[in-house]
Amino acid sequence: MPTISRKGLLMPESPIRKLVPYAEQAVKDGKYIYHLNIGQPDIKTPEVALRAVKENDIEILSYSRSEGSESYRKKLAKYYNNNNINVSHKDIVVTCGASEALLFLFSSIMDPGDEVIISEPFYANYIAFSVASGVKVVPAVCSIEDNFALPSIDAFEKLITPKTRAILICNPGNPTGYVYSKKEIEKLASIVKKNDLFLVADEVYREFIYDGGTHHSIMEEEGLDEHAVIIDSVSKRYSMCGARVGCLVSKNKTVLKTVLKFAQARLSPPTYAQIASKAALDVPQTYFDNVLEEYVGRRNVLIAELNKIDGIKVAMPKGAFYCIVELPIKNSDHFAQWLLENFNIDGETVMVAPAAGFYSTPGIGLNQIRIAYVLKKESLIKAVHILKEALKVYKD
Amino acid sequence: MPTISRKGLLMPESPIRKLVPYAEQAVKDGKYIYHLNIGQPDIKTPEVALRAVKENDIEILSYSRSEGSESYRKKLAKYYNNNNINVSHKDIVVTCGASEALLFLFSSIMDPGDEVIISEPFYANYIAFSVASGVKVVPAVCSIEDNFALPSIDAFEKLITPKTRAILICNPGNPTGYVYSKKEIEKLASIVKKNDLFLVADEVYREFIYDGGTHHSIMEEEGLDEHAVIIDSVSKRYSMCGARVGCLVSKNKTVLKTVLKFAQARLSPPTYAQIASKAALDVPQTYFDNVLEEYVGRRNVLIAELNKIDGIKVAMPKGAFYCIVELPIKNSDHFAQWLLENFNIDGETVMVAPAAGFYSTPGIGLNQIRIAYVLKKESLIKAVHILKEALKVYKD
Ligand SMILES: Cc1ncc(COP(=O)(O)O)c(C=O)c1O
Ligand SMILES: Cc1ncc(COP(=O)(O)O)c(C=O)c1O
Repeated sequence: MPTISRKGLLMPESPIRKLVPYAEQAVKDGKYIYHLNIGQPDIKTPEVALRAVKENDIEILSYSRSEGSESYRKKLAKYYNNNNINVSHKDIVVTCGASEALLFLFSSIMDPGDEVIISEPFYANYIAFSVASGVKVVPAVCSIEDNFALPSIDAFEKLITPKTRAILICNPGNPTGYVYSKKEIEKLASIVKKNDLFLVADEVYREFIYDGGTHHSIMEEEGLDEHAVIIDSVSKRYSMCGARVGCLVSKNKTVLKTVLKFAQARLSPPTYAQIASKAALDVPQTYFDNVLEEYVGRRNVLIAELNKIDGIKVAMPKGAFYCIVELPIKNSDHFAQWLLENFNIDGETVMVAPAAGFYSTPGIGLNQIRIAYVLKKESLIKAVHILKEALKVYKD
Repeated sequence: MPTISRKGLLMPESPIRKLVPYAEQAVKDGKYIYHLNIGQPDIKTPEVALRAVKENDIEILSYSRSEGSESYRKKLAKYYNNNNINVSHKDIVVTCGASEALLFLFSSIMDPGDEVIISEPFYANYIAFSVASGVKVVPAVCSIEDNFALPSIDAFEKLITPKTRAILICNPGNPTGYVYSKKEIEKLASIVKKNDLFLVADEVYREFIYDGGTHHSIMEEEGLDEHAVIIDSVSKRYSMCGARVGCLVSKNKTVLKTVLKFAQARLSPPTYAQIASKAALDVPQTYFDNVLEEYVGRRNVLIAELNKIDGIKVAMPKGAFYCIVELPIKNSDHFAQWLLENFNIDGETVMVAPAAGFYSTPGIGLNQIRIAYVLKKESLIKAVHILKEALKVYKD
């Protein structure tokens, strides 16, 4: 039998996928599962976006431009301008989700053997895109003790080698819920300028900032035009994960031109999804106000309930809809599986994401889980109650 | 300024894209262009597919399964069964177009430095996917003199090195219109079995077979289960290029598992497009009968008109909707540009695809163009007339 690639062997499986068979079995056994493990919001997609697709008058569903339809990119540029990000439609390449934007960017700015510094813990698929591009992830470890603030400039510069090409942050952060301060963005800006690196910010949770905080985009920084690349998506913003529309934004013409070559090779982003995404830009601020109110309420309930559990540690998330929780256990992979297989209260159990998959540093995160607060408050209360009771009887 | 990747520099630009600025200028100058250069059919998308999207009742546009929705894959498996391809939905991974299937497959079965043998001339983006994966394309040159039949087994085996991992064919062929005979498929089967290689067939034009011919899929061959991978797409089949739905089909579980890891990293294929693709499977055979009748008519007109031109050579295409035409010129890149810039009859000109981009062997194809017969007959007649008159005055 012909063999597959080394790269293919190295590609990680999603840390959550491993649990899926156990979850399926639990459901078969008649159990109900509270899903704290997924980043799929339960918020309704804006009606205006759904309607635009229903009312489309396409007769020939043809390829769109590889960089995305001009009318969508023009409207998107206005959205960025309203968010203090001074770009034109020519600075945007529309992609099939933030995922494709990351994949194309990694291939455009790094060769096999190059290194990307990523603030850790990070979105697990960054590892997959790195493996796919043959790139080495160098983690800049952020700790739950510091509420996941960025390491010092010194600590960062120690990680830079001749092979370093970029620093990647996720702001607001998945899985931490951390929101970078203006100071931290300035710190990163000075590092990438001094060391001639790219600064990539995954800002797919831009709107999800709580407690009156502000989002500081890397593209609001002066002098970063050649360095800054934003990765973005409609998935979370409009609860449109299934659309598969994201984009890459940069003022660096060489980066755009190169990413466009990858985009041209795959012809075009999906047409229906671009129609939905363009229409979604019409949702009023009140939509976000309501969504944010809902998430803040959920977060407050979640954190309050979690803090009632003995021996756990949790940082207050300031954005996105995730948090990392440290538990008084040794191995959260095992714990998560055990919850599905061996624990329930009145036939109900919970599914959590073991945190090790969000770290590339071996051994860190083993006693942590990620919780996504994409469930209604009452469900969160019940789910945390189950977690609490489970910890009383669980043995590593 | 931070530098981009070597890979990024090597990524080819589409051979047609280079002409786009000249085409845009021609339009600005008030000229009408007959587009013989594109693979975008003018056939209407089946009503049943368009309607399914309009009548969807989605409230939350959520991620689908990374391998594609189960109901779509089940229906797709039936389609394959009806085409003598004995697979189940578990042998299918749904992708964002054939493009993504090719990209994921290349990364799954080859590492940087590995080699893939591709029958040449080939679909230009195979080069792009190879560069993206760091893979070397080794061309198996087919010649217009032989009507693009496959080289002999001997010639093939001379191309195999310890680094060879796969043979890739496109059947029916873009840009040749060539349809492989059962004998040729058997020949390839014996080569890949003997040398333990993968055999990849891009069968996106499966339905487009003329003159009573039959399509022989590589997955109809006995004993190829571990070797054969089909790349497929709804783009051309249902004139749904903008949907962005394709798939990869194989009986090789390791390949499927590896491709799935890449698919999981990008989360899911587009939801609306899967709805359209699933519904499209309901189009009756009469739809294809009509489409084929239309294409055969176009092809016959095109070839008849082309054969009236002095000094040209063209092979009769047996499938797909392209043909390679050899012209009495030295450089078709220049000729194609000249047509747009300097030639018109009553304000009308033609855009063709220079063929050099379909070859990786330097120097071949320079006097060839690819013509796509995706225009109505009357337009084809006019377009070929313009080509004929142009050749009378054109000087290399
Ligand atoms: C931080 C982050 N980036 C990117 C993505 C991928 O998003 P998309 O659906 O646009 O591919 C996700 C999805 O969960 C995410 O959390
Ligand atoms: C031979 C061949 N393979 C693959 C593709 C890409 O198809 P898709 O639109 O499914 O990505 C094309 C498109 O023209 C093609 O001609």
